[in-house]
Amino acid sequence: MSTDICLHTPYVCRMNNDQKRPLILVTNDDGVFSKGILALTEAVLPFGDVVVVAPDKPQSGMGHAVTINNLLRLHPLKYDLPVSAAYSCSGTPVDCVKLAIYKVMHRKPDLVVSGINHGSNSSINVIYSGTMSAAMEGAVEGIPAIGFSLLDHSSDADFEASKQVVHKIVKATLENGMPEGICLNVNIPKGSPSTIQGIRICHQAKGYWEDNFDVRTDPHGKPYYWLTGEFKLMDEGLDTDEIALANNVVSVVPVHFDLTAYRTMDQLKKWNL
Amino acid sequence: MSTDICLHTPYVCRMNNDQKRPLILVTNDDGVFSKGILALTEAVLPFGDVVVVAPDKPQSGMGHAVTINNLLRLHPLKYDLPVSAAYSCSGTPVDCVKLAIYKVMHRKPDLVVSGINHGSNSSINVIYSGTMSAAMEGAVEGIPAIGFSLLDHSSDADFEASKQVVHKIVKATLENGMPEGICLNVNIPKGSPSTIQGIRICHQAKGYWEDNFDVRTDPHGKPYYWLTGEFKLMDEGLDTDEIALANNVVSVVPVHFDLTAYRTMDQLKKWNL
Repeated sequence: MSTDICLHTPYVCRMNNDQKRPLILVTNDDGVFSKGILALTEAVLPFGDVVVVAPDKPQSGMGHAVTINNLLRLHPLKYDLPVSAAYSCSGTPVDCVKLAIYKVMHRKPDLVVSGINHGSNSSINVIYSGTMSAAMEGAVEGIPAIGFSLLDHSSDADFEASKQVVHKIVKATLENGMPEGICLNVNIPKGSPSTIQGIRICHQAKGYWEDNFDVRTDPHGKPYYWLTGEFKLMDEGLDTDEIALANNVVSVVPVHFDLTAYRTMDQLKKWNL
Repeated sequence: MSTDICLHTPYVCRMNNDQKRPLILVTNDDGVFSKGILALTEAVLPFGDVVVVAPDKPQSGMGHAVTINNLLRLHPLKYDLPVSAAYSCSGTPVDCVKLAIYKVMHRKPDLVVSGINHGSNSSINVIYSGTMSAAMEGAVEGIPAIGFSLLDHSSDADFEASKQVVHKIVKATLENGMPEGICLNVNIPKGSPSTIQGIRICHQAKGYWEDNFDVRTDPHGKPYYWLTGEFKLMDEGLDTDEIALANNVVSVVPVHFDLTAYRTMDQLKKWNL
């Protein structure tokens, strides 16, 4: 890999080796052969040396799952883009980040980017999202990390506008450094570069999925279920990711992994447990 | 099921039907046949009508994964305890909560309890934990929810002290109601009732897993990996879950699912994206 070669770059590497090109890990949850990860890889290649480690199959909805009761595999891949290395991994998006750091790169990269997801990860979707869990795992490891998602589930979605958004946000992240313990959840409206109305820092909209299971009967007469559902927005605030996206604005939510609800600690202390 | 029968109870049902016995969903991530879920079911039976829906196999480390690319199965079970109904489910802990609400109970229960997990879910483990993700899914649905974990991985761990802790915390939750958007992450030290030194409201300790993959070679000469690692505590605070547990005190962390890092929003706005 070329990551030990010292090359000039205008972007400061904040983590390890200020004199070297940033080392960037690219992963996703749609699988290593999805169009979204190719778009993301293309968009970050100008910023440093890129290593791709991504699932060998779709892993949407895997949340922060890790594989502890099964083995993991890594397979080297030929990649059409000039990356330093590319691997498919048999595990979850979080497994990919862990294997990439400890068994592929043998050091922490300077940036983890995940996506570009085919479909939104705004609002409550952040907790189900493999894309965002990969980014969060980067943040847990102390690495600046960003998850990108496009509001288009189509396998041949148009990522041109998304690539421009990625470029802008990655540039700003490398220039400014990421606040400690934070990763970014970036959602991008569907559309062309000319229809996108800017980028906004937002908070996660309150909402949930009203589930609806599609019940079917197998050829042996036994029932089985498919999870479906409808998203319910429960937030009337104006500075949410949902409102930004509804107005063709890219939403950027800073996400942290300290799940403590500090404000309720005093209330619970009154329970006198 | 007996949940439509109006019976006297000293514990107020906060969610749906004040005149009825609370309806309690019990789930876990170790699987429906684990000792921990039996202990939890026993401990909550005095408080209401209990329905068990839990995974048909161990689902540790599944985080907030949901099954969207595969079918789900529910199997009714005979259960040794006097529950209203018990099912095993082919999916993840979060799938269990969703199926239980929408296809087993056909209404939201008044309480979701998850566990008792065989092993700790303190500190950063909360984000990987299927036990806690099931509780969080309850909270997302607006249901008071608690995840319980015992610091003992043994399959025949002693849950006697844990059952007393469950009784105390469930009683307090039904009496006080749960703050909106919150679930509780309860971790219980290993030991007898006499060795446990109380219950403390804490925050999640800062920490991470330094991963170490065990690399092996299969009979065909190809490498594979097992995820292992060592927990690194990075928090010197005294009011963390880790400190409580180290002092034989039960830790109770209020956990929320709004992952927005509000404090960093202003800092990010200065990036002028």
